[in-house]
Amino acid sequence: MFFHDQRLQYTAKPNAPDPIYAKKLQEALGGQFGEISVMMQYLFQGWNCRGPQKYKDMLLAIGTEEIAHVEMLATMISQLLDGAPAKVQDEMAQNPIVEAAMGGSNVGDAVVASAMNPQHFLVNGLGAAPNDSVGFPWTARYIVSSGNLMADFRANLNAESQGRLQVARLYEMTDDTGVRDMLSFMLARDTMHQNQWIAAMVELQHEGLDQTPVPMNFPLELERRDVAYQFMNCSNGEAAATGSWASGRTPDGKGEFTYVENPEPMGQVPEIRPAPATTHGTNPAPEVPSVGGKAMMM
Amino acid sequence: MFFHDQRLQYTAKPNAPDPIYAKKLQEALGGQFGEISVMMQYLFQGWNCRGPQKYKDMLLAIGTEEIAHVEMLATMISQLLDGAPAKVQDEMAQNPIVEAAMGGSNVGDAVVASAMNPQHFLVNGLGAAPNDSVGFPWTARYIVSSGNLMADFRANLNAESQGRLQVARLYEMTDDTGVRDMLSFMLARDTMHQNQWIAAMVELQHEGLDQTPVPMNFPLELERRDVAYQFMNCSNGEAAATGSWASGRTPDGKGEFTYVENPEPMGQVPEIRPAPATTHGTNPAPEVPSVGGKAMMM
Amino acid sequence: MFFHDQRLQYTAKPNAPDPIYAKKLQEALGGQFGEISVMMQYLFQGWNCRGPQKYKDMLLAIGTEEIAHVEMLATMISQLLDGAPAKVQDEMAQNPIVEAAMGGSNVGDAVVASAMNPQHFLVNGLGAAPNDSVGFPWTARYIVSSGNLMADFRANLNAESQGRLQVARLYEMTDDTGVRDMLSFMLARDTMHQNQWIAAMVELQHEGLDQTPVPMNFPLELERRDVAYQFMNCSNGEAAATGSWASGRTPDGKGEFTYVENPEPMGQVPEIRPAPATTHGTNPAPEVPSVGGKAMMM
Amino acid sequence: MFFHDQRLQYTAKPNAPDPIYAKKLQEALGGQFGEISVMMQYLFQGWNCRGPQKYKDMLLAIGTEEIAHVEMLATMISQLLDGAPAKVQDEMAQNPIVEAAMGGSNVGDAVVASAMNPQHFLVNGLGAAPNDSVGFPWTARYIVSSGNLMADFRANLNAESQGRLQVARLYEMTDDTGVRDMLSFMLARDTMHQNQWIAAMVELQHEGLDQTPVPMNFPLELERRDVAYQFMNCSNGEAAATGSWASGRTPDGKGEFTYVENPEPMGQVPEIRPAPATTHGTNPAPEVPSVGGKAMMM
Amino acid sequence: MFFHDQRLQYTAKPNAPDPIYAKKLQEALGGQFGEISVMMQYLFQGWNCRGPQKYKDMLLAIGTEEIAHVEMLATMISQLLDGAPAKVQDEMAQNPIVEAAMGGSNVGDAVVASAMNPQHFLVNGLGAAPNDSVGFPWTARYIVSSGNLMADFRANLNAESQGRLQVARLYEMTDDTGVRDMLSFMLARDTMHQNQWIAAMVELQHEGLDQTPVPMNFPLELERRDVAYQFMNCSNGEAAATGSWASGRTPDGKGEFTYVENPEPMGQVPEIRPAPATTHGTNPAPEVPSVGGKAMMM
Amino acid sequence: MFFHDQRLQYTAKPNAPDPIYAKKLQEALGGQFGEISVMMQYLFQGWNCRGPQKYKDMLLAIGTEEIAHVEMLATMISQLLDGAPAKVQDEMAQNPIVEAAMGGSNVGDAVVASAMNPQHFLVNGLGAAPNDSVGFPWTARYIVSSGNLMADFRANLNAESQGRLQVARLYEMTDDTGVRDMLSFMLARDTMHQNQWIAAMVELQHEGLDQTPVPMNFPLELERRDVAYQFMNCSNGEAAATGSWASGRTPDGKGEFTYVENPEPMGQVPEIRPAPATTHGTNPAPEVPSVGGKAMMM
Repeated sequence: MFFHDQRLQYTAKPNAPDPIYAKKLQEALGGQFGEISVMMQYLFQGWNCRGPQKYKDMLLAIGTEEIAHVEMLATMISQLLDGAPAKVQDEMAQNPIVEAAMGGSNVGDAVVASAMNPQHFLVNGLGAAPNDSVGFPWTARYIVSSGNLMADFRANLNAESQGRLQVARLYEMTDDTGVRDMLSFMLARDTMHQNQWIAAMVELQHEGLDQTPVPMNFPLELERRDVAYQFMNCSNGEAAATGSWASGRTPDGKGEFTYVENPEPMGQVPEIRPAPATTHGTNPAPEVPSVGGKAMMM
Repeated sequence: MFFHDQRLQYTAKPNAPDPIYAKKLQEALGGQFGEISVMMQYLFQGWNCRGPQKYKDMLLAIGTEEIAHVEMLATMISQLLDGAPAKVQDEMAQNPIVEAAMGGSNVGDAVVASAMNPQHFLVNGLGAAPNDSVGFPWTARYIVSSGNLMADFRANLNAESQGRLQVARLYEMTDDTGVRDMLSFMLARDTMHQNQWIAAMVELQHEGLDQTPVPMNFPLELERRDVAYQFMNCSNGEAAATGSWASGRTPDGKGEFTYVENPEPMGQVPEIRPAPATTHGTNPAPEVPSVGGKAMMM
Repeated sequence: MFFHDQRLQYTAKPNAPDPIYAKKLQEALGGQFGEISVMMQYLFQGWNCRGPQKYKDMLLAIGTEEIAHVEMLATMISQLLDGAPAKVQDEMAQNPIVEAAMGGSNVGDAVVASAMNPQHFLVNGLGAAPNDSVGFPWTARYIVSSGNLMADFRANLNAESQGRLQVARLYEMTDDTGVRDMLSFMLARDTMHQNQWIAAMVELQHEGLDQTPVPMNFPLELERRDVAYQFMNCSNGEAAATGSWASGRTPDGKGEFTYVENPEPMGQVPEIRPAPATTHGTNPAPEVPSVGGKAMMM
Repeated sequence: MFFHDQRLQYTAKPNAPDPIYAKKLQEALGGQFGEISVMMQYLFQGWNCRGPQKYKDMLLAIGTEEIAHVEMLATMISQLLDGAPAKVQDEMAQNPIVEAAMGGSNVGDAVVASAMNPQHFLVNGLGAAPNDSVGFPWTARYIVSSGNLMADFRANLNAESQGRLQVARLYEMTDDTGVRDMLSFMLARDTMHQNQWIAAMVELQHEGLDQTPVPMNFPLELERRDVAYQFMNCSNGEAAATGSWASGRTPDGKGEFTYVENPEPMGQVPEIRPAPATTHGTNPAPEVPSVGGKAMMM
Repeated sequence: MFFHDQRLQYTAKPNAPDPIYAKKLQEALGGQFGEISVMMQYLFQGWNCRGPQKYKDMLLAIGTEEIAHVEMLATMISQLLDGAPAKVQDEMAQNPIVEAAMGGSNVGDAVVASAMNPQHFLVNGLGAAPNDSVGFPWTARYIVSSGNLMADFRANLNAESQGRLQVARLYEMTDDTGVRDMLSFMLARDTMHQNQWIAAMVELQHEGLDQTPVPMNFPLELERRDVAYQFMNCSNGEAAATGSWASGRTPDGKGEFTYVENPEPMGQVPEIRPAPATTHGTNPAPEVPSVGGKAMMM
Repeated sequence: MFFHDQRLQYTAKPNAPDPIYAKKLQEALGGQFGEISVMMQYLFQGWNCRGPQKYKDMLLAIGTEEIAHVEMLATMISQLLDGAPAKVQDEMAQNPIVEAAMGGSNVGDAVVASAMNPQHFLVNGLGAAPNDSVGFPWTARYIVSSGNLMADFRANLNAESQGRLQVARLYEMTDDTGVRDMLSFMLARDTMHQNQWIAAMVELQHEGLDQTPVPMNFPLELERRDVAYQFMNCSNGEAAATGSWASGRTPDGKGEFTYVENPEPMGQVPEIRPAPATTHGTNPAPEVPSVGGKAMMM
């Protein structure tokens, strides 16, 4: 069960409204690697966890923290939208320069009204939306909860890496020190969480719960071991041969990388049987037209 | 530019058709972590790569290989659908047991016709579709290409881990030795690719191109370092305190984990300004009704 | 900021696993009117609220409660999936009756394996997913946060009505007394929440913050008042004339319903100008082929 | 069956083209609460209606009217797009001011070409699209047709409220009197439809067909009545206690609201069983590696 | 403006309910090439039409007819769902055969309840939904309205071909003569509409409004004419060389097909510049860490 | 199996970066009729092909070529994004004119930063994305692979027509001769492919594999032949009667078009049975409340 304290986890106050930046900041809220994604991902992993209790507890702790991050971003976006203009002045559509020359103070407004996300005004009444920076809605297909903790922690490390990268970019996209202050908090938490998932993966491996290749409890002898460490160079770029993935001991400690310069097909040229008449598909030769009723079914 | 050899990369031949299994196998083709996802992810990362050539070459090589995996799965699914029945016999809907007792050989067909993906017959004429195991279409929001190779290789390691996990599960879901043979090849390639991404990440780090926290070239002093290594226990599960993420040296070598048993809000109680009248939103007190024309815009 | 107590808000324990029912119960978790929808809807309305504090507080309280409902459902679904079979036995695909006659205890398993959601096994490893009962992912386009509380409370009343209706149906779809016990709690909370939104709407109106037609602060004289209370019978069903929407005082107290038996078009036959040559669209007469460069732009 | 009269239901003629406004007006056509949504929602409710004929007739009448609203908006958008420019002049990308200073009459065009929806030109050749104001396509998940009229009329009242709110905002976003004239018609029809759904709900209740809590024909004694009227304050905002939802008679006349200041969890700490080996998930202790074939299935 | 006659365009009455078939029939209603798609496609093409009036009139006539097809299908589906069972009996989940042997008349119900679309009961209360046969919602991205009539009529011919193919398959999937009667009407209308679009395309060409290659009013000299009729054999299948697309006069009468057995790349090996520091992407060499403030922006 | 040559199929080099144009060019990459669509469509049709080998070979050849087109566009977009600015200068948001008057050279940057797709910077680090020009992700629901070659070649002809139309429009939207050079290649290939699909359809028909109405192997006597060639004028536009689709021999050579000026409904007024109590839907008269347990199920 969950409880809410009205104070934010960290201060979220811009110096000034900036509706165009509000549109961009939506990426960190409702984007593929925004805070809604990590919140939902960690909570579902926690609820579904069938592994040791400490992992379950940890997942629920961090998943709960992420709700607070969603809250901070939504709050920030509402404030960035304060006072956004409704309208592109019609004179402006004709000539912003003339307008400006006449001392029009609304030119800035006109630019904002044409570049901000129109749904911020129309649909949300100057509030945050659970969408990304192009207005695409958050979708549950973003998240991962597989029941295998090692696989999922790799997903989590990725999410915190993409997330921190995007927040760093958002930091570059504004000079507002209030916004930057909040982002500096989020960057630090992403630093924590990258470290956390790495630590947790090491721990899983030390405890014998999993290892590369994940999942370790699928018997290796059931896979085609002869191709398990080959780099197959299906492109004619030669520099790939110089990478550590093309020779030497493999990270899982179970093999040697080899480089296959000209990989060859090992399989058949496919042959698929003609389709039954009931599909009305195209077969190699003209079909006898199907007829109604029972006969048609064979 | 690309070229195609009609031979498959590896044999893809089932012993017998199995339309219900065909539906499940779609997950490995068009699911979140199916082969279309890795094919598109690696190709876009390759095309967008602005880093050292060896990484670009490697990405394009493996991306190209993955097209062949898509091809093998599509070919396998078509064959699993061979001869799938069009119809649930109407007697069956009433009483399959009576039918069976009368020697009806169509009972198996009826079960298949009601459990297979109906679009395999209706939409694809017994062919494969770029969808997952519940018929949801592949979407480009599955993939990642951020321009930061360390972040993206973490995404790739996750994709190969989720992918191998799902293929292992698909292996358990059939006894068909032809299908299992193809899956044993895919499992091995996933083993290779997990190793490959780990090797590539180590190499990136050795070359000083990135490190934890990703992206390393965002100055650490600009983040709130005091919260960069705190585990904030927002849930009352106590076992989380025993994990390696709650104390000790952090994996990035730049700090010490600390455990915050009762994290406190550090931010303000949010206050958002009333909305302008043009939004027709709800404000703290009744609004003076807006009036048409210019006046309304202030 | 949010905090989590590991105890559930209410008991969520099935008597026995039932993977087919788990698939259906997903509707209440990740469907259009599932718990994720109300959780996100109320939280965003709360965060975006610019109206009186009591509404904001109320929204955040109930939004936080809904996270606990998501948690209960996820927990229940995991338990309903316990021990779900991976495989449709291959003999069964051929003849379940023969198998059964031979005393095969796996027939039930085979039915379950073909009727359950395959992603519950393949993608989630027997865990809950943020999807609905056909596997469609939750999408943020389900929710509403408009900045107008009266409009949004109508949305909320609808959500609780559709939600309670679906939970009532889910109650009918199982005999498991453990599941029914949890649903009886959810039904009661939906009863509370329907009442709550009605009370809140009455309060908004008493306080003069809004009224029908919403939004009240758009000046009525700016709308075409002559058609504001006409029932236009665009279909030839005559019974509609007998409803209270076809005559008598209107609920907003501002007019009289009238019944227009044969509504007439009041507008023009549209005429749209030919398209510019640069669109390469079809115009009333053959176009002069466009030519490159500047000239083409006029 | 349906018939079409080429005259519009009401005049739809802008004074002048305005491609940026055309983009915003798409919200009223293909947005979550645009005219396509209500058209489809009412028609499906009508076709699916198993209740009294007068409701079915009424739903089909209004559903048919809404097709005319879709038509008016599409027509308006095409005209707003008349003559939209294809191109951002390349000089402009470098310096619009210099261009303007030189008397460039194309500056306005350049702004329009960069701010309009590019698909209006590229995909639709200056025609309307069934999308919203950020270009997201209309989706059938927007609509509701539950088979329960009371629940659905609440959905309809919400749709007309959100719809009228958005049209009011669109009215504020333009000064074009032609556009405003059409919107004044739509605002009035939304006023009618809000009143209509309220009248219909009152009628349903008078006839004993349903009442709060919806659906009334689920026996109340089967829900947990002890929590059916409690306001559980899961957030620490105190103002919520002052609302009419926290004390007093409930609107359904069947209970008294009570305020629970510190709600307590009533359920268990969840325990989920380890996963079967075939899922290759993570369990509390290291698993014995699974082996191929039959044995693996237990 | 539109008007509705309550009589259906053609009889839509099944002999008996069949909820599993109802699920499949949804493809013809809300699938990619279902009736909602053609209805919306033709109406939008009609509303957006800037070409000769006869095409606009024709598009609106057929678009209006298609609404009646949507209506027939929705009506049929509701009737196929009549009396669908809510529940998989719990004994059945354990052993349907034993149940059957005991004379259980509910076995058929149990099969239906596990194979029907659960949303037909849960979400729609035994009504039709605007979704396809796997429950995926209709999306506006299915339709085409480009402003170029020749291009769009090709889209329409495709839609009627895919549509008639799917209806033919649906015909094979049932023995219900009532359903088949309705489908025989739809098949005939699809025959009409295939002929209609072909006739319309011929007419467009005769009138000089367009021709292959569409759009004809893009000057051919602006395309690379040397590659405009080459078949580039990027796959090693040799049979493609024997097709009429590999030699002989081209259908547009403007060239000769040539067969390029071994197509060669004509372009450069791409080189993309390093990314600016503000992207925090990966560059060829380690970056100097960015620093805060102004400097970082160059 | 597939192989990659690092040289592009054709040169893809812009004269200068243009991030706003990069956003528009995404339509040709990841839009409904972009290169990803045709690549996936032809490959799936090839893999699923059960018809004559020459069609399969041809589909795989052209499908493989299209991967190269995706590559060229992705490469072009990356270069158009080179050096895109991260930030809208904050002064600019206030007054671009003043800034300009002061000689600010960053005004152009500010316009670009507010009009470009924010995800190009934020999500892709100045790389291409598999999305369209409004940022909507490519979805597999765009493509067609039906198993009927005639139907699918009609889909392909449509795709190449919409595709060439959009590329022609993109040509108009830029003056960059480098971009135009690449587009001139794509236009020519679209010319080839339009011709190719027409040739292939003629060949299919000559070989007796299919003909209008598609699919020809559904017996015509099973459709309602009396309505198979009627133009039903459901709209009151009279010009439609003058088209070749309203009279004369039909293109399939099997009938005569007739014009039905006032089409009449031929079907019943629908009557649907009341819903079972377990649906808790609305019936014609008040229901007896359902009660728990067994009884409720009848």
